[in-house]
Amino acid sequence: MVTQMPYGYNGRILRVNLSNSSIRVDEPDEVFYRTYFGGTALIAYFLLKETKPGIDPLSPDNLLIFAPGVVTGAPLAGSGRNGVGGKSPLTGGFGDAQGGGYFGAELKHAGFDAVIVEGQAEKPVYLLIVDGKAEIKDASGLWGKTTAETEEAIRQETGERVMRFATIGPAGENLVRYACVLNDVLHAPGRTGMGAVMGSKKLKAVAVRGHKGPEMANPEKVRELGRWMTENWKGLAFGMYDVGTAGTVRPLQVSGGLPTYNFRQGHFDGFEAITGETMRDTILVNRGTCFACPIHCKREVRVGPPWNVEPLYGGPEYETIAAFGSYCGVGDLGPIAKANQLCNAHGLDTISTGVAIGFAMECFENGLITEGDTDGLRLTFGNGEAMVQMVEKIVRREGLGDVLAEGVKRAAEKIGGKAADYAIHVKGQELPMHEPRLKQALGIGYAVSPTGADHCHNVHDTSFAAEGPGINRMRSLGFLEPLPAIELSARKSRLLHYVSSMTHASDCLVICFFPPWGYDKTPEVVSAVTGWNTSVFELFKLGERAATLARVYNLREGFTSADDILPKRIHSQLTSGPLAGVGVDEDRFHTAVRSYYEMMGWNSDGVPTKGKLDELNIGWAASGRG
Amino acid sequence: MVTQMPYGYNGRILRVNLSNSSIRVDEPDEVFYRTYFGGTALIAYFLLKETKPGIDPLSPDNLLIFAPGVVTGAPLAGSGRNGVGGKSPLTGGFGDAQGGGYFGAELKHAGFDAVIVEGQAEKPVYLLIVDGKAEIKDASGLWGKTTAETEEAIRQETGERVMRFATIGPAGENLVRYACVLNDVLHAPGRTGMGAVMGSKKLKAVAVRGHKGPEMANPEKVRELGRWMTENWKGLAFGMYDVGTAGTVRPLQVSGGLPTYNFRQGHFDGFEAITGETMRDTILVNRGTCFACPIHCKREVRVGPPWNVEPLYGGPEYETIAAFGSYCGVGDLGPIAKANQLCNAHGLDTISTGVAIGFAMECFENGLITEGDTDGLRLTFGNGEAMVQMVEKIVRREGLGDVLAEGVKRAAEKIGGKAADYAIHVKGQELPMHEPRLKQALGIGYAVSPTGADHCHNVHDTSFAAEGPGINRMRSLGFLEPLPAIELSARKSRLLHYVSSMTHASDCLVICFFPPWGYDKTPEVVSAVTGWNTSVFELFKLGERAATLARVYNLREGFTSADDILPKRIHSQLTSGPLAGVGVDEDRFHTAVRSYYEMMGWNSDGVPTKGKLDELNIGWAASGRG
Repeated sequence: MVTQMPYGYNGRILRVNLSNSSIRVDEPDEVFYRTYFGGTALIAYFLLKETKPGIDPLSPDNLLIFAPGVVTGAPLAGSGRNGVGGKSPLTGGFGDAQGGGYFGAELKHAGFDAVIVEGQAEKPVYLLIVDGKAEIKDASGLWGKTTAETEEAIRQETGERVMRFATIGPAGENLVRYACVLNDVLHAPGRTGMGAVMGSKKLKAVAVRGHKGPEMANPEKVRELGRWMTENWKGLAFGMYDVGTAGTVRPLQVSGGLPTYNFRQGHFDGFEAITGETMRDTILVNRGTCFACPIHCKREVRVGPPWNVEPLYGGPEYETIAAFGSYCGVGDLGPIAKANQLCNAHGLDTISTGVAIGFAMECFENGLITEGDTDGLRLTFGNGEAMVQMVEKIVRREGLGDVLAEGVKRAAEKIGGKAADYAIHVKGQELPMHEPRLKQALGIGYAVSPTGADHCHNVHDTSFAAEGPGINRMRSLGFLEPLPAIELSARKSRLLHYVSSMTHASDCLVICFFPPWGYDKTPEVVSAVTGWNTSVFELFKLGERAATLARVYNLREGFTSADDILPKRIHSQLTSGPLAGVGVDEDRFHTAVRSYYEMMGWNSDGVPTKGKLDELNIGWAASGRG
Repeated sequence: MVTQMPYGYNGRILRVNLSNSSIRVDEPDEVFYRTYFGGTALIAYFLLKETKPGIDPLSPDNLLIFAPGVVTGAPLAGSGRNGVGGKSPLTGGFGDAQGGGYFGAELKHAGFDAVIVEGQAEKPVYLLIVDGKAEIKDASGLWGKTTAETEEAIRQETGERVMRFATIGPAGENLVRYACVLNDVLHAPGRTGMGAVMGSKKLKAVAVRGHKGPEMANPEKVRELGRWMTENWKGLAFGMYDVGTAGTVRPLQVSGGLPTYNFRQGHFDGFEAITGETMRDTILVNRGTCFACPIHCKREVRVGPPWNVEPLYGGPEYETIAAFGSYCGVGDLGPIAKANQLCNAHGLDTISTGVAIGFAMECFENGLITEGDTDGLRLTFGNGEAMVQMVEKIVRREGLGDVLAEGVKRAAEKIGGKAADYAIHVKGQELPMHEPRLKQALGIGYAVSPTGADHCHNVHDTSFAAEGPGINRMRSLGFLEPLPAIELSARKSRLLHYVSSMTHASDCLVICFFPPWGYDKTPEVVSAVTGWNTSVFELFKLGERAATLARVYNLREGFTSADDILPKRIHSQLTSGPLAGVGVDEDRFHTAVRSYYEMMGWNSDGVPTKGKLDELNIGWAASGRG
């Protein structure tokens, strides 16, 4: 390409080797940035190019990649996020989680487009990045501290009050397989266990301060887009401000798709106490937000004794409420908020943690584990106190907590017997709080996602089941008509293909899905920031490229199409509630998975064809390596 | 879809059965229009849905479809065109040719989005369409007349001076396999022999007058786009005004890719006399244009004795100049313009006619045919007089003309011996005037085109070989860097895939490639006219859909991947000129064809996968029928 001044990105990727304490800077060219953009595709690129097949995710051979994207840090809603990726200790495959806040933007403002950490430190360290300079600092005194304690200690040590952090808590140190990184204590790139990877490298935190972001290609257009969002977000996304992601509890309950009792039910009698509306009217004390975003979808809550929850750690998202609420049968925001706080303080993914505890509850109720295993806890559905204590045991890998810290797949193998039937996961990653029997295309998405069951780069069928903003947005891609949520068919595979390609693209850009830029304004955002005359077509292809690279990585690591499956339970019928009698038909499911493969340009074994790789300009990935 | 008032289209397709003289109107819904749009995809839809496999293209079973598109007739440059389609008597496969002028726009203004003719009249007829009403009229007195005579007679008969026509000449009546339809005497939807299909139906002309076009969804935006074109076309397309398509002669000569002597050479010593600049400075008397278009790329020429060419029939396009010029070794615009006039008056495709005569010249020079076969004509390269006389013989199917009227593939079979080596065609259709040894992706395009060798929905590698408007437009699709024209590779297959998908889409819309709307403004045009919130992605998929439906049709009719080949001569090296030593490598060529298949979602036999059909929302085509 004709070289231009980099707009939107810095042209610099920070490389840190903790084994020999070396730091260097890579300077990829514009074609690299416009091919991979950031986030998912960038992570997949480096995992394929620079790691050997079959490495232990918790060994020094793994990479830990902090990856914003080309629009991150631009003064536009949704641009504060970053991805965290590496080989997943939970799935053994492609690991990638994304979170909001300010860390991604700050990293860009500090002069870097990504940070790639390899090796392993001898003693705990943290990485300090200030205005283009990076330093590996001793963190011996921080090991064992919560995320908030760690941040405060680093602020004190550096004297820098305004600083942004990606930090692990004790769960990451203890290599809990679904430990996560926390951005500034309360924004969680939650899935796939990147906190354990960070812990294995003895990297306690990345602390960042930057004063100068990349130039904007078209500052006036950026301002115009910013004004548009300021003027329009309320009409398009007021619900996200009002009740946050927790607004989802009620409609899912009504439609029978609220995961309850370890996916044995799709409705929860105690749901009224845990809705977004109830949270708003009871424990909510403030609405937080992310860099440059007017929407304020984040919750900050306070709960008095006995739970003692402080707003410092924010408040529970929908996933967290369902995982610790209906999933564990707990109809009380107190223990839910407490579990959320513990997870954020100690660095645990709330989804996997809730599912692991729900799994244990079912094991307990069926006698597969007893009070002898739980140190006397009565781990029954609905026991919020026991649930909260189990969170702490998982963090400390104490007793049954040590078993559950391995994730439900491994825990079930250890417990044996019927426990495998209760382990609700895909590729080892626990299912998020979306019911594939209600959202049947999402079920295909769980099966084929490179990160195992994942709701982030997935389709939520209910948003496309009737006239509304969902299907209207899709029409611009030529997807013309609403489809019933409860249907498994080729057109559902197409819905997944289209929506997930666009969300994978968002995860490369790396932008948030909530600010209502839509498919029309997103290319405008990219163009105003980078100067690239892009299109929704280029972004769709970017999404396909990211998903395909991640697929190639998983194939290289030994996954096959036999792993693109759902838990057996999901194929059985729900027996009560609005979805009584509804299951995911197994034959239709397998046909729909194959259909998705073909739409992606993958062969019947789910292997991308050479032609498709070449079409995506990643022919180098045909060897699985590059 | 939510039903809206149709904008841009009428919602009415005229159905005419000439066997029983019945007329009816179909009223497809909005989803139909937004799935197929018009032109190529609409033609393929009806051929698959309504014709039986294996029919004789010249039988009453064939359909003849006049198809504009959803933006045709809007007051915007490029919107005057229409497609003419049916099963091709030349290839036995998918037939589709597009031409400019005013006919398509007039048809839309007369209240119809397409005209589908089936059956066969007992005696010659013409179809009269005025403001939503259609009538089958006797044309016995018109049979044998030239296109201009026919139009004049109908104007006299109806008393309507302002009328637009699609007419055949005697070549169509005589079922010359590459006879074409002429729009208003001088705009030719030239390829695939649709004039013969029209002749077989004894349909001499379609005469149209309409006073009211479809409403525009956003009239103000349409006006704004019109103003943009008025203000910008000169800076972007002045060459098309100045020298027309004939401007291509000189650069192709310079690069060694000007088809000469039946593709035995890529440069022509007499080229200077036949350039667009020479035409402009000598015989040009006026610049014509199409509906709503400021560019005026059309030529009108006058030549005195002995050629006696009148501007009534326009002037030769690049393809015509090369086919009757360098291809036949004729370095004189006089006989070229004369041959052009004869073709337009009698309804012959100039490309196939020129190639057929060049083929015959090589046969003659090699003794495969003699003066005994040519009624004494010395049919040598460079003999313009003999060439012009051969055109007339082909029209009348007289002597050797009857053999050549079958196209070079059948003619070579009849002549026998080495003639097959001289027959330069793909799937029976003669190669256009673009050299695959210079434009190597275009060579792949010749091989895989549903209509046989075709330059219209193809890529012209030289436009993407250096920084410029071509590659800049492609960047918006994520195709980032120029590629050498003389290269056969996966990335060349990708270039073909991307460019041809967009041109196939243009052939559904049905808009012209010359007005510089680009990939950014074309969706704006569609949106302003139809009210659909479309995108370049939707248009790209439309192009894939059209090409894939046409592919399914050809497979149904018996074509296989073994037919996706180039003439042997193209694989041999040129022996002189700038491209001396350059051929199309056979192994690389076959690999590139397979690569294109995979990019299109076709299997290694070139058969679209079920998943791809479903992704394009044409799963019904899996049966090859619907």
